Amino acid sequence: MITGKNIIGSRKSGKSNQTFSSVNAVSSETLETNYSIATDEEIDEAIELAHTAFNLYRNFSGYHKAAFLDRIAVEIEALGESLIQQIMIETALPEARLTGERARTTGQLKLFASLLREGSWKAVRIDTAMPNREPLPRASLRQLQIPLGPVAVFAASNFPLAFSVAGGDTASALAAGCPVVFKAHSSHPGVSEMVAGAIIKAASATGMPDGIFSLLQGNEHRVGQNLVAHPKIKAGGFTGSFHGGMALLKTAQNRVEPIPVYTEMSSINPVVVLPEALRINPKEIAEGYVSSVLLGVGQFCTNPGILLTSESPDTEIFLQHVKEAMAKQSGGNMLSQHIYSSYKNGVQKLKNSSLSIVHEGSSPTQENVAAPVIWECSGADFLNQPGWQEEVFGPSSIIVKTSSVEEIYTILQSLQGQLTLTIHAEEKDHEQVNQLITIGTKLAGRVVWNAFPTGVEVSHAMVHGGPFPATSDSRSTSVGTAAIFRFTRPVCYQNIPDAFLPEELQNDNPLTIWRWVDGDWTKNLIN
Amino acid sequence: MITGKNIIGSRKSGKSNQTFSSVNAVSSETLETNYSIATDEEIDEAIELAHTAFNLYRNFSGYHKAAFLDRIAVEIEALGESLIQQIMIETALPEARLTGERARTTGQLKLFASLLREGSWKAVRIDTAMPNREPLPRASLRQLQIPLGPVAVFAASNFPLAFSVAGGDTASALAAGCPVVFKAHSSHPGVSEMVAGAIIKAASATGMPDGIFSLLQGNEHRVGQNLVAHPKIKAGGFTGSFHGGMALLKTAQNRVEPIPVYTEMSSINPVVVLPEALRINPKEIAEGYVSSVLLGVGQFCTNPGILLTSESPDTEIFLQHVKEAMAKQSGGNMLSQHIYSSYKNGVQKLKNSSLSIVHEGSSPTQENVAAPVIWECSGADFLNQPGWQEEVFGPSSIIVKTSSVEEIYTILQSLQGQLTLTIHAEEKDHEQVNQLITIGTKLAGRVVWNAFPTGVEVSHAMVHGGPFPATSDSRSTSVGTAAIFRFTRPVCYQNIPDAFLPEELQNDNPLTIWRWVDGDWTKNLIN
Repeated sequence: MITGKNIIGSRKSGKSNQTFSSVNAVSSETLETNYSIATDEEIDEAIELAHTAFNLYRNFSGYHKAAFLDRIAVEIEALGESLIQQIMIETALPEARLTGERARTTGQLKLFASLLREGSWKAVRIDTAMPNREPLPRASLRQLQIPLGPVAVFAASNFPLAFSVAGGDTASALAAGCPVVFKAHSSHPGVSEMVAGAIIKAASATGMPDGIFSLLQGNEHRVGQNLVAHPKIKAGGFTGSFHGGMALLKTAQNRVEPIPVYTEMSSINPVVVLPEALRINPKEIAEGYVSSVLLGVGQFCTNPGILLTSESPDTEIFLQHVKEAMAKQSGGNMLSQHIYSSYKNGVQKLKNSSLSIVHEGSSPTQENVAAPVIWECSGADFLNQPGWQEEVFGPSSIIVKTSSVEEIYTILQSLQGQLTLTIHAEEKDHEQVNQLITIGTKLAGRVVWNAFPTGVEVSHAMVHGGPFPATSDSRSTSVGTAAIFRFTRPVCYQNIPDAFLPEELQNDNPLTIWRWVDGDWTKNLIN
Repeated sequence: MITGKNIIGSRKSGKSNQTFSSVNAVSSETLETNYSIATDEEIDEAIELAHTAFNLYRNFSGYHKAAFLDRIAVEIEALGESLIQQIMIETALPEARLTGERARTTGQLKLFASLLREGSWKAVRIDTAMPNREPLPRASLRQLQIPLGPVAVFAASNFPLAFSVAGGDTASALAAGCPVVFKAHSSHPGVSEMVAGAIIKAASATGMPDGIFSLLQGNEHRVGQNLVAHPKIKAGGFTGSFHGGMALLKTAQNRVEPIPVYTEMSSINPVVVLPEALRINPKEIAEGYVSSVLLGVGQFCTNPGILLTSESPDTEIFLQHVKEAMAKQSGGNMLSQHIYSSYKNGVQKLKNSSLSIVHEGSSPTQENVAAPVIWECSGADFLNQPGWQEEVFGPSSIIVKTSSVEEIYTILQSLQGQLTLTIHAEEKDHEQVNQLITIGTKLAGRVVWNAFPTGVEVSHAMVHGGPFPATSDSRSTSVGTAAIFRFTRPVCYQNIPDAFLPEELQNDNPLTIWRWVDGDWTKNLIN
């Protein structure tokens, strides 16, 4: 079932003699398949095919594209247990998490399909003609969103389904009308090929042009760099490390034609616990915090890397609850040897600094199994140690005990851009809240109330994004239906007769979509 | 009234001994004011002040910001005839054009003010809570657009009002909630200071924070480069030459934190005249074309630099009408000596190539007065001469006589990104139209029907933008109300109690704005 080849549109291709293997994420044993590293020729073929496909696909109706997305979901489900088993081998993620992630992935595809069928997402703006306006008549002006062109998408290591081959970037790019050339992650190439096969089956079943999707394998930077550098690639989507994301951005910046490359990189997702919340709910917050830090062995983009609270007698009670909650937890197998050793190095670096440990899980004897650590420090020390702001990808988090709520503000204002800021507050804390929310909206893409940042809803209003370095472009979200606008641009039709307008812009509004007509949203037709 | 100093918030500043002067655009005589070139310290002061102002201004209500924009319009009008006189001296633009441009500029400010008062522009998206959803409840998620931060804006030479100090970039940035640090154009520093004075007066009259607007003078690249490189600048807007725009982009790309810099650069705005339209309306189209080419002495971004038509006996009739229309026109004074000499060089370069002249205006004896030129060539020759695709800024345009309509398609597909594509068609041409529009939407930001591209309406649906190199970011427009989204980003409030939400997101919808609630646009409140 897994061939180790690249998938260039509808055909398999393995031109290179150079191959790589993936490893069993639990045992570190090398798996048997040899994956053919995409050659420059294969990269080019995939992009040329995507370019040709774009000229057809961009004109497909919303219903047709929706059928494709829905069918991808069906084909992924049809892979059944064998898909889950393959991912467990390649990532060590547990079965329950993976069935959940599969549901999220197919749900995401279906959500974009429903968005396409409903049709209003094209953000139609119409200024009706004013032939008698003085001193000059106004032409009829009608705007809608159109797709940018072929998109390069990169797999994330931490979500082998939801942020990988058929994940959010692919779903939103295909929904926008853009073919996708996908760079698989070298730590889960097998599941990548399986899901790519599902997409190709769906494409064939729903009459999609050859090249609507291609999968490139590789364990070297060249593949991704050449993909983003290609003149026929018009946008990129990436979720991963700061260094990986910045390298892609730099490649994009060296192109003649600038293109948007959306990289979602690092974030430590501060959690603020205000005094009264700490006093009333120390146990509940401690347990929620520890669960959030340890969720998925800490390998979530929204993992809370610091918790800020102003020191008081309640702090010690809270720390006691944190210790108890930690004691109930055990370490987990990380996604790959590479991630595990990065984590170990990160933890060692913190140990070598003056950070104190609140609780460290016992050293696991098994390879790739991380020991979770919760640290503590004073606000002043945190401010003096810029290195502590750096994300340690894994189950590590610092509790910062500040001298006052004002010091919490100072620390938040010293941080770089984040995906989220979380606030725990009770009624007596409320006078602090307005200022905290103001700081939060400057700092982050999402402000969370009395909950934890892990768990990102896929919906219309979600923002999974935020100021640099959380992402390269704070104007975008990579989760939720608004993610589609990363891959579109507006175009305006001036005085074009109805017969030549796309249906979305025609007077009769044949698709019955919402349109912004002369300054109001309406589904009405235009007289 | 004109001091030659920089304007740093509410105070004038001229720290440098280095100055420059502007010249009378007709006579090339040096004008008397010495303008103080902004020092690095002054640039920094302006940006720091803007940063501080941002923390206040970002929370101002739409009504308050609207009052500021409306007042800027009033203060510009109050400058009266002296403003027009100053611009005529610095740009040689005629009075009628300038009173029109002033009306456009104040109209633009008032349009953004009305957008702010209406309030729906914040693009609110609400997913209501589903506390009983299985397997997990859904939190309340509420998204709106917030401002990015201080914006660097650059004056365009060709619109001393509408694309300069209080032009579209400034109006949309201020409307978005972003302070503006403005780099004046060295060819019209006097009018820049006058308009900046109007903005400062309006800011003071409407209680704006100091630093909401600053004006920097200079005739060296350093000022603009340092402005865009500053870490507290969060976006940039520029209209001008390809080289100027690309230099700013490169500076932005060398920053640690990437920021969006919107540069609107070069475009030759192809006009296609299909056979039947040419046959029926040769005179009308010829006259419209010549007027559009010569409008503002050809110094418009949307100036039609090429006209494409398939050769037939009607072509000669059309060319005859072009000659007649040209014969009635005279050359005009260009905006500056620099632009005039660029134009002369561009024309000379075309003369040295194998282009034929349809009509050239008689060589003017006056300095800076351009002789308009219409050229002709075959489609095959055009395809062989990539240099002919380059914009010659001024009243120059090439008529390309193709061997067939298919060759028109081929030529369009060989072009780089454009602001506009224009189609002239009559009923018998209609079978060509669908394909042309498809090509047009890939090529350009706006497709115009049986009219000419000059004249850009300021409205909701306008797109003044397009694929590279027409702009650096095809996802944006620099004209119309959608220009505001260049300077905003989304933020999501998760489960935040109503009392702490901005009014736009509160259950009762106290501002009665349009909101996208659970997948429908509504002004209703949320239960």
